[in-house]
Amino acid sequence: MGKRTASSVARSQGKASIRDSLLEAASALMREQDTVEIGILDIASRAEVNHGMIRYYFGSKEGMMLALLDRDVQMRIRQLAALFRLDVTPTERMRIHLEGILDTYYQIPYLNRLIHAMVRDASPERVHHIAEELLKPIARAQHRIIEAGIESGEFRKVDPKLFYFNTIGSADGLYANRFTLSAVFGGIPAADDALHERYKKQTVETLMAGLLA
Amino acid sequence: MGKRTASSVARSQGKASIRDSLLEAASALMREQDTVEIGILDIASRAEVNHGMIRYYFGSKEGMMLALLDRDVQMRIRQLAALFRLDVTPTERMRIHLEGILDTYYQIPYLNRLIHAMVRDASPERVHHIAEELLKPIARAQHRIIEAGIESGEFRKVDPKLFYFNTIGSADGLYANRFTLSAVFGGIPAADDALHERYKKQTVETLMAGLLA
Repeated sequence: MGKRTASSVARSQGKASIRDSLLEAASALMREQDTVEIGILDIASRAEVNHGMIRYYFGSKEGMMLALLDRDVQMRIRQLAALFRLDVTPTERMRIHLEGILDTYYQIPYLNRLIHAMVRDASPERVHHIAEELLKPIARAQHRIIEAGIESGEFRKVDPKLFYFNTIGSADGLYANRFTLSAVFGGIPAADDALHERYKKQTVETLMAGLLA
Repeated sequence: MGKRTASSVARSQGKASIRDSLLEAASALMREQDTVEIGILDIASRAEVNHGMIRYYFGSKEGMMLALLDRDVQMRIRQLAALFRLDVTPTERMRIHLEGILDTYYQIPYLNRLIHAMVRDASPERVHHIAEELLKPIARAQHRIIEAGIESGEFRKVDPKLFYFNTIGSADGLYANRFTLSAVFGGIPAADDALHERYKKQTVETLMAGLLA
């Protein structure tokens, strides 16, 4: 600590902040434009930095996209760890978990599309990282809640792997289909907080009904 | 009829067959490559015709993609009309309808992505056509089954619009997330008939549980 001067602290804060600004700019553009096909010039412009910063911090646009995926998913994995520390029944734990998944897709509706684009272009090491460090921990956590619920007699004997796809599909269903939303709901461009709360409530009730014994 | 010679009949059959072959080739490539970004040379090569045939029959690649979307969805709309002629309870009608939606996404897992790509690039008239002639009839049919079920006391009072997104999301969830499927199911590349049957059964049970009073 003694060696860090005020200016080096300011510099490292500045670095973290440029890095974070770039990630947040990419995330915002993907949400607004409803696509993961965004350009580095647009990202840099949104973050108000030179686009060379993308290469400096992430090596490449692909590196930045992987860092964004890591940021988005690791945060949820930490929340899952906290969920297992709560002293609640499997039913209550699953309800909180499902609400978290719905919130996730509302906040980052590009998630599945980003994974799809990443695994198409990324190196085998990165694909392995995405599978092992990002996707499997979430699927395993849900599996664990379901097994505990079957054990305690609260849940019927569903296949946890299949239920996982019901979960991510139902969560994704509204937010990743913006045009259908607009057509079916009379022209609204995207879900807002009020619609999200209604969708979350009904979706969690439906999924829990499928699960409860 | 008197004016149609044997050779003109043969010609028009040949035309229908080239047109159908091109649509089927595009559909097969999108399924196999798990993307809607496919090239006209690949489509023509797969259909074993000159790529000029795409312009001849559809005007453009966009025209062909819209024709494919029409083919895929109109077939399901005709099945829905048949479903309403069956003398069954709303519960039974919904079950058949949901099975049909699951089968649809298994057969054409590119459906949502194709709609997404089409509405991004298509003219306002085509976007209107997709919304009014393809998406709304399906959403309305499901709405009608739900209202009848609520009326008869078989269903709880769910919001039919929200339930529609649960439906397409759950159906899409397995087939549009091939990488997650592979990661979670230990490396299998895509759903096969056996997995589809298991997923259909569990998904329909879950959605019906969310609906039944």
